[in-house]
Amino acid sequence: MKHLERSSRRRFLQMGAAATGLLGGSQTVLAWDTPGKLGIPLGPYGERSPFEKAVRWRRESKTPETGSSFTPLQDSVGTLTPSALHYERHHAGIPTIDPAQHRLVIHGLVDRPLSLSMADIKRLPSVTRTLVLECGGNSAGEWAARTGADVQRSYGLVSCSEWTGTPLSQVLREAGVRPGASWVIAEGADACRMERSIPLAKAMDDILLAYGQNGEAIRPSQGYPLRLIIPGWEGNTNVKWLHSLKLTDQPYMARDETSKYSDLMPDGKARIFTYQMEAKSIITFPSGGQTLPGPGPYELTGLAWSGRGRIERVEITTDGGQRWVPANLHEPRLPIAFTRFRLPWRFDGRPATIASRAIDESGYVQPTREALIGVRGTNSIYHFNGIKFWSVRADGTVTNVEA
Amino acid sequence: MKHLERSSRRRFLQMGAAATGLLGGSQTVLAWDTPGKLGIPLGPYGERSPFEKAVRWRRESKTPETGSSFTPLQDSVGTLTPSALHYERHHAGIPTIDPAQHRLVIHGLVDRPLSLSMADIKRLPSVTRTLVLECGGNSAGEWAARTGADVQRSYGLVSCSEWTGTPLSQVLREAGVRPGASWVIAEGADACRMERSIPLAKAMDDILLAYGQNGEAIRPSQGYPLRLIIPGWEGNTNVKWLHSLKLTDQPYMARDETSKYSDLMPDGKARIFTYQMEAKSIITFPSGGQTLPGPGPYELTGLAWSGRGRIERVEITTDGGQRWVPANLHEPRLPIAFTRFRLPWRFDGRPATIASRAIDESGYVQPTREALIGVRGTNSIYHFNGIKFWSVRADGTVTNVEA
Repeated sequence: MKHLERSSRRRFLQMGAAATGLLGGSQTVLAWDTPGKLGIPLGPYGERSPFEKAVRWRRESKTPETGSSFTPLQDSVGTLTPSALHYERHHAGIPTIDPAQHRLVIHGLVDRPLSLSMADIKRLPSVTRTLVLECGGNSAGEWAARTGADVQRSYGLVSCSEWTGTPLSQVLREAGVRPGASWVIAEGADACRMERSIPLAKAMDDILLAYGQNGEAIRPSQGYPLRLIIPGWEGNTNVKWLHSLKLTDQPYMARDETSKYSDLMPDGKARIFTYQMEAKSIITFPSGGQTLPGPGPYELTGLAWSGRGRIERVEITTDGGQRWVPANLHEPRLPIAFTRFRLPWRFDGRPATIASRAIDESGYVQPTREALIGVRGTNSIYHFNGIKFWSVRADGTVTNVEA
Repeated sequence: MKHLERSSRRRFLQMGAAATGLLGGSQTVLAWDTPGKLGIPLGPYGERSPFEKAVRWRRESKTPETGSSFTPLQDSVGTLTPSALHYERHHAGIPTIDPAQHRLVIHGLVDRPLSLSMADIKRLPSVTRTLVLECGGNSAGEWAARTGADVQRSYGLVSCSEWTGTPLSQVLREAGVRPGASWVIAEGADACRMERSIPLAKAMDDILLAYGQNGEAIRPSQGYPLRLIIPGWEGNTNVKWLHSLKLTDQPYMARDETSKYSDLMPDGKARIFTYQMEAKSIITFPSGGQTLPGPGPYELTGLAWSGRGRIERVEITTDGGQRWVPANLHEPRLPIAFTRFRLPWRFDGRPATIASRAIDESGYVQPTREALIGVRGTNSIYHFNGIKFWSVRADGTVTNVEA
């Protein structure tokens, strides 16, 4: 099988007796001997099966326009997140924007202020990139080991999509960046006018003005019709419903880069502008809240990603961290995208403590929770990327060790 | 910009005056000075914008359970097709299947007949591959130059998804293929029990028993909960709602491999089992039915794919085929997947006849319509992959040359 990822097919050849139903000789039991019934007609838009119930999860709230909703990672397969299940983090609800009326204004320290329609932007050369987006506050509960029982509620503020848009650098060159400009202040068209300050060097590097997600227009909860996509940086900087870019000589010191999205260190000082997301990984099966039906062979699987580039290696432990073995990685491993990892695993009916650890192409190794706290203390909310353990009990139930 | 595909950013630097709105000096005109309104709350499932109207198209029919619906390629961005817009071709409607009840039975010339539940199948080692599916009858109207006015109705029976499943070879090894077995008869659980014969060699190579599409369960119109995915082969062989695989020593000679999905040659003989899809490409913008708002710079773009592997090169003509220039290709170019191609193009207000031509890694060059008819005659319905021309008129309207 030429294009098969590096897998261990042969290891499973003897699983039949354990995991599968042997049919016996008679064909009279075959379910398809029952007569068929004419199905549902063809349709304009193919919704998912009524048997599929996965949805985003959010805390109950009196202000449902602000908060987070979490991707059901426990139901994920492959490397992409369905757009309808991409995590959300909003501060003033989702604006309803008519793309025919929308403009992106580029102003401040530029030679030629621009007001671009969506049609203008779509005429520019475009690029497509598969990229992970992770909220800076994803898995924040792990700092204090008070987190959700399952992978969705504890780690669900991360998703991966194929984004299409035009390089921001090209539009800034069009506007003509003046000498002295060093920051770009990005502002969204939501009611709170969410703003973040982006260093000009990053703006001229790999940022996208994105209008496409997974083969269609970006969904409203992801910034329709236009958002920033900033490869490798915390989700909050990827401003949604983007309507203004102002070139300045200093950052804006917005709420979301001072009182929020800054990292309080043990010495009482706060790190700010900690944009970069580090390497991280999570086992999605088996994970908290799931139950293995019994001993036997399973595929252990999960997701790894890094804001710094490609995932080089993922290692798995099933004995609480004493022994680590390399997992099989989905190919191609795209930079700053979800890399699905997999490992055949036989559950022998004894308790197991399982975890994954990611190593990225920069050589960075995902740290233990303890090592991370050793450096960062426990005042932090953002940028937790410690190794995550699940506990598999003898009865097959799986729990969150840090919950 | 490190990861930017090979593009020609600089060519567009001077487009501002033509394609964009210059703002002038005053900031008082900025749209975002109007007060913001609180948006829509966070939600469990993020539907698309009400301003996005793209749907699959189908011919009116008195038997809406059989027929085809076409992907709106003119609205596509990037390399994936949203699952809800993936083309359909059904023969007895879409069955509603409870995955907890569904079984895949493997029988015939095997040592151990198997009846596998979906849970059994999901315990097996899995792989994920991004693959194009194309109906053997896509662009059939081109043979007689009587085809749809736009790219959806003329070429929309092709789509690309990220598929996840388990290798069929591994399940067949589990069942133990008996000497003498040379074919696998795949049968769907739709009312007509759609069947196709697959040579055993292909079954042992790269076929998937797929349950995942674009990061979630396969949608009902694509075969929920289980279908065959046969890389590079005509869509019809990728049996949906798969419930039976029978190992035999001969093909079944089913309706869809004899009276249908066979190719009548000029000498009156028919080719059968013409599974393989050849290299093909199509410009999606500008394409039939679209209108350019005026002269100036545009991004000409489209999709190329080949059942034989990677796309090596795509060439574009804007003068009816006299001169061909290479397009920029999206990276990574995955085998048997959509490869998005792009080329900056300046419409000068004079009529232009545009087309694309794909070359795959096997060296195969997408032929002209005339060359194809020279070999195959005009009795064919299936496997049209000739070069496709669109005509751009002086007023910016675009028409299908072969419609």
